[in-house]
Amino acid sequence: MHRIKQIFSNHPDDIDAILIKNPGESSVDENFYYLSGLDQGLYEGAYALITPDQKLDLFISKLEAESAHHTNATLHIHSTTNELNAQLQESLHSNKKIGLNYARIRLTDYTYLVKKHPDITFVDISKTLQTTRMIKDTDELEKIRQACKITDKVMNKIPEIIKTKINEFELAAEINYYLQKYGASHPAFDTISSFGPHSAEPHYTHGATMINDKDFIVCDFGGTYKRYNADMTRTFIFGTPTSYQKKIHDTVIHAQTVGFDTIQPGIMANKVHIEVAKAIDATEFKGKFIHSTGHALGLLVHDGPGFTGENDLILKENMVFTVEPGIYIPGLGGVRIEDDILITQKGFELLTNATRDLIEISH
Amino acid sequence: MHRIKQIFSNHPDDIDAILIKNPGESSVDENFYYLSGLDQGLYEGAYALITPDQKLDLFISKLEAESAHHTNATLHIHSTTNELNAQLQESLHSNKKIGLNYARIRLTDYTYLVKKHPDITFVDISKTLQTTRMIKDTDELEKIRQACKITDKVMNKIPEIIKTKINEFELAAEINYYLQKYGASHPAFDTISSFGPHSAEPHYTHGATMINDKDFIVCDFGGTYKRYNADMTRTFIFGTPTSYQKKIHDTVIHAQTVGFDTIQPGIMANKVHIEVAKAIDATEFKGKFIHSTGHALGLLVHDGPGFTGENDLILKENMVFTVEPGIYIPGLGGVRIEDDILITQKGFELLTNATRDLIEISH
Repeated sequence: MHRIKQIFSNHPDDIDAILIKNPGESSVDENFYYLSGLDQGLYEGAYALITPDQKLDLFISKLEAESAHHTNATLHIHSTTNELNAQLQESLHSNKKIGLNYARIRLTDYTYLVKKHPDITFVDISKTLQTTRMIKDTDELEKIRQACKITDKVMNKIPEIIKTKINEFELAAEINYYLQKYGASHPAFDTISSFGPHSAEPHYTHGATMINDKDFIVCDFGGTYKRYNADMTRTFIFGTPTSYQKKIHDTVIHAQTVGFDTIQPGIMANKVHIEVAKAIDATEFKGKFIHSTGHALGLLVHDGPGFTGENDLILKENMVFTVEPGIYIPGLGGVRIEDDILITQKGFELLTNATRDLIEISH
Repeated sequence: MHRIKQIFSNHPDDIDAILIKNPGESSVDENFYYLSGLDQGLYEGAYALITPDQKLDLFISKLEAESAHHTNATLHIHSTTNELNAQLQESLHSNKKIGLNYARIRLTDYTYLVKKHPDITFVDISKTLQTTRMIKDTDELEKIRQACKITDKVMNKIPEIIKTKINEFELAAEINYYLQKYGASHPAFDTISSFGPHSAEPHYTHGATMINDKDFIVCDFGGTYKRYNADMTRTFIFGTPTSYQKKIHDTVIHAQTVGFDTIQPGIMANKVHIEVAKAIDATEFKGKFIHSTGHALGLLVHDGPGFTGENDLILKENMVFTVEPGIYIPGLGGVRIEDDILITQKGFELLTNATRDLIEISH
């Protein structure tokens, strides 16, 4: 229940309670999982209610009641929407001021709450949730470490997977298979396995394109372990690289090292991006690094602000980020190297460790 | 652009435009994809604006500009949030009344729009979007058919996959692998591969449990093809079934047949559930069918109301649903059979076809 304590102590105003709704399939409020600690199940349409005395109430459908018994929360089980509404009414009515996550709650749900509870003042606590979740606790770090470990293991296997001619699609299927085989519940996001010119488009995922000699192979993926994500990228080469390709790869490695040398608690997040971008812009690849250097990582893959040019966040112990410089040459291809790091008391720790060398995959 | 025409003609009031925001990772508004027709890419933070003269404007980040060129829409590309806001301001300011999808838009985004556009009246068009999307068009049906075909193919492969002792986890990894190998972009949802007693919990996904003799094996999964989903379940048996297990399976098959015999355009959706539940409740398994008979299927797995006891929707040509009765015996296991169907002019068409027989997997 230390998470609940932390949230209320991080919130600047007095509030009586915080209510989180997890809508379902197409929109999830991951804070429901953060508060409940339930690491299996969907909990569509479920609510979590927390109060400053560190009590947690969960409002859950009968269909998922079995799985929800793994928490210490007070459970309110419903079979129908009417039952759920009555339970909520009962639990909310004595409160005057309730915090909601404006960054997730859908207008339909908000409108309903306001209509049903005309005497309650609802306020936005989204910033407090984000601030709290930026600092990972021991349980979260364990899960992130495991997600990174699984991802590392699959990354190390890639040269073996691409032993024959393969297309992007098949490589993605193999990567996803091994992620799950090694213990991930699913891939953290649509696996990127882009070959040759496609690797110059950072958001391209995969198609039916066959691999060709001298193709860069950008593999950007992660496993999700008990809802926590890893996110890692390595770039391989099919055959032997040209000296130009080698130079691109060396420059990205150098830029990442500059990032690593900059990262420490107490500095502003934007400093990392500024230094990394400067390292690339000082070379012939000026202007070819077209995204930010990294993002926070946790229950979401993009779990909060990270190493962008504008972010004035101060780095603190137990924050987790990606560090992912890249260079993209339209028509030829791109190189991106991405690792996950944990801010420590004095510096940082690498959570992903597969070799960063440009591995030549022979054919 | 017939989708745009349909939406405005389905909406009871005059509105000047409809604005859809696709927030991102943890909350997606699938209507952005419905309107844009873009079947690759994330488009986090993108907007779609449609007007009654059938114009479509997309507001998209530079990072995804390349992929977005596949539409006929007018593209507004931005590099920064300030640019995006200026583009939106320019496109919205001449409108008086704009429809928003209250069922998806987050309170943060709504609050921002209201503040920036004090002269615009925003109204809820979520019901109109749902009504429109219940009737699938030719392009959507093609994609759903392909998703079902891929899923069928994997389902047929399962007896071959379970030739050796396997745990739930490994079976799920194999299923997901073949879904992607056969052309799905990813599994439509967390694949369910539950053995023995676990199969009695409809929402249990998979764990490290090893398969045992006489275990029911419930496989509930689907492939996603160009964003459209299939959702299918078959129940297998490891070894030979007891006569009691055989009876459970026969009863579910019979209940599904009753459902099929009931489905036709013009009837109310709840009739299907009522008849299916009646068929099970007339047997010794009364009360063991603990969920609804089916849901609509499309861009979402749960793509709208389906065969529940309360749904007064009238079935119409080109609606797509699942039909999935089940019987769950705590401690022993469960049987569920699920198929996807398309309502036709005179009846319905099965979109999934793998055998419904209780396949005995020898060991």
